[in-house]
Amino acid sequence: MAAGADDVSNSLRGAGKLALSRALSRVEAEEGSAELADFLDAACRADGSHVLGLTGPPGVGKSTLTNALIRAFRARGETVGVLAIDPSSRFSGGALLGDRTRLSTDPDDQGVFVRSMAARDRLGGLSDHAIAGIAILRAAMDRVIVESVGIGQSEADVAFAVDTVVLCIQPGSGDSLQFMKAGVMELPDIVAVTKGDMGQAARRAVSDVEGALSLGRVATGGWPVPVLQLSARDGVGIGDLIEKVDAHRDFLGEVGRLARKRAAQQAQWLRDMVRVQFGKAGLRLAEEEGLLAGGSTPFTALRQVSDELNRRLGLV
Amino acid sequence: MAAGADDVSNSLRGAGKLALSRALSRVEAEEGSAELADFLDAACRADGSHVLGLTGPPGVGKSTLTNALIRAFRARGETVGVLAIDPSSRFSGGALLGDRTRLSTDPDDQGVFVRSMAARDRLGGLSDHAIAGIAILRAAMDRVIVESVGIGQSEADVAFAVDTVVLCIQPGSGDSLQFMKAGVMELPDIVAVTKGDMGQAARRAVSDVEGALSLGRVATGGWPVPVLQLSARDGVGIGDLIEKVDAHRDFLGEVGRLARKRAAQQAQWLRDMVRVQFGKAGLRLAEEEGLLAGGSTPFTALRQVSDELNRRLGLV
Repeated sequence: MAAGADDVSNSLRGAGKLALSRALSRVEAEEGSAELADFLDAACRADGSHVLGLTGPPGVGKSTLTNALIRAFRARGETVGVLAIDPSSRFSGGALLGDRTRLSTDPDDQGVFVRSMAARDRLGGLSDHAIAGIAILRAAMDRVIVESVGIGQSEADVAFAVDTVVLCIQPGSGDSLQFMKAGVMELPDIVAVTKGDMGQAARRAVSDVEGALSLGRVATGGWPVPVLQLSARDGVGIGDLIEKVDAHRDFLGEVGRLARKRAAQQAQWLRDMVRVQFGKAGLRLAEEEGLLAGGSTPFTALRQVSDELNRRLGLV
Repeated sequence: MAAGADDVSNSLRGAGKLALSRALSRVEAEEGSAELADFLDAACRADGSHVLGLTGPPGVGKSTLTNALIRAFRARGETVGVLAIDPSSRFSGGALLGDRTRLSTDPDDQGVFVRSMAARDRLGGLSDHAIAGIAILRAAMDRVIVESVGIGQSEADVAFAVDTVVLCIQPGSGDSLQFMKAGVMELPDIVAVTKGDMGQAARRAVSDVEGALSLGRVATGGWPVPVLQLSARDGVGIGDLIEKVDAHRDFLGEVGRLARKRAAQQAQWLRDMVRVQFGKAGLRLAEEEGLLAGGSTPFTALRQVSDELNRRLGLV
């Protein structure tokens, strides 16, 4: 019996942070079960909320910006879920997790939920747990913020799991710009130059980024990428950023863009999850045998592919 | 009949660039064959040459530095093979490949060989073709330079395939430093601050990097990471860099460090290649059934694992 998207969304929205925490725990505890896959697919179908991805190098001020966004969304009465993606470097230990504690949210506010998750193993891609976490938060909250350290590959990973990508760049930082110019970096939907209190350097960074954007590629599908200057610490520019985020959300809402984008993302997740689990050989086999058709219920489809390939490998 | 390391090395060293080009073509043309695996494993066993990895963001001047290193090595009578790893972004098209043509080598010089290769698919890791290419160049040339765009994940990938990692950073660039401080970036063996003609900014970059290194982690295994300032365009500092590279090579040569490092790398390649091909499920199965023991002949071991897993999946 398939769970309804409205049921899942209503049960998650009504039940507070403890219930949300339990739902996220199910992702690990019940991994591989038909019930979990059904629940996650229903969560995927829930709509109405918006997923914002914040990406950029460490130290750029993403946590400060996330804090400012949480406050602004809460002031408008919107609920907020935050998923902080930690890169899993072999050497980093817990350095970046420590960073996460900079998020200062009121523990009694049932309208804010923050969770950290490991990004991925060496073979890349957002982990299937992170994808499941985003689906659950999306069903439960009005706003979801996915905060991810990195430029290049991890920025691309986040672009495949969120509605709107905000790339954070700080003045005087050369690498992000170089990556954008070289086309190594995927196209963000909005660029935020943080630490706008740095005056002239910030203004130069804005014009550098604008130059790189115009130099680089044609804006995809008619969305002109705005470049904003802000100082999250002083609260300057947060209103502008939210305005642009909402404008992008509205843009996606037109002529079925969001539905198409999310459908394409789900089909991509399914492929990625099959490939992480069974490699190129498994993905090829799943394609050849038409096992990837269930992109609209990616978690159930993954379960079916896994059952079949595990059986063949003798792993059941 | 296993090919001898000396035979393979001698045949590659004697035969010029056309033969080397043919050997690299075999990697694709004979993929999966026992003969190719045997040839590549023999190439892996050849020693005597040194593999340098150059990494850093686009625009930092890696091509200029590679040109300068080629000239310096050739002036000492050493043969040089260059493998330029291109990131395969969905959006970049051929932008970076264009960049590669900045390498200006004499086509008639049989002692220099340059090849570009795609880095990897979305699931990451150096491609098995790149790994095979490095093994072949290592058997054929005195010096191998692997040039890779990227910081973070792709830097880590290169660290698993070369003897000495040189991270290139340009003055005023904030991101690389932020990544180092945060521990997202693996520890390089040498840091080169390029564009040293930028004067005070370059000197500040050197001291920033030295600060980040001392702040970050204990130097692994007794090698103090040197930070050099150079201007490849003017040839300034190239001699110092080669001196440090050779010092690191000598350091690795002591008490069996290089042999241990390469053995560990080969075991890691084998695991990575199995995982790319058959995913986590395939890797787990290969581990459980003791199929990964052949780390000293990784390509033959991969072939055996592939045969077995493909047979089970019904892919033969």
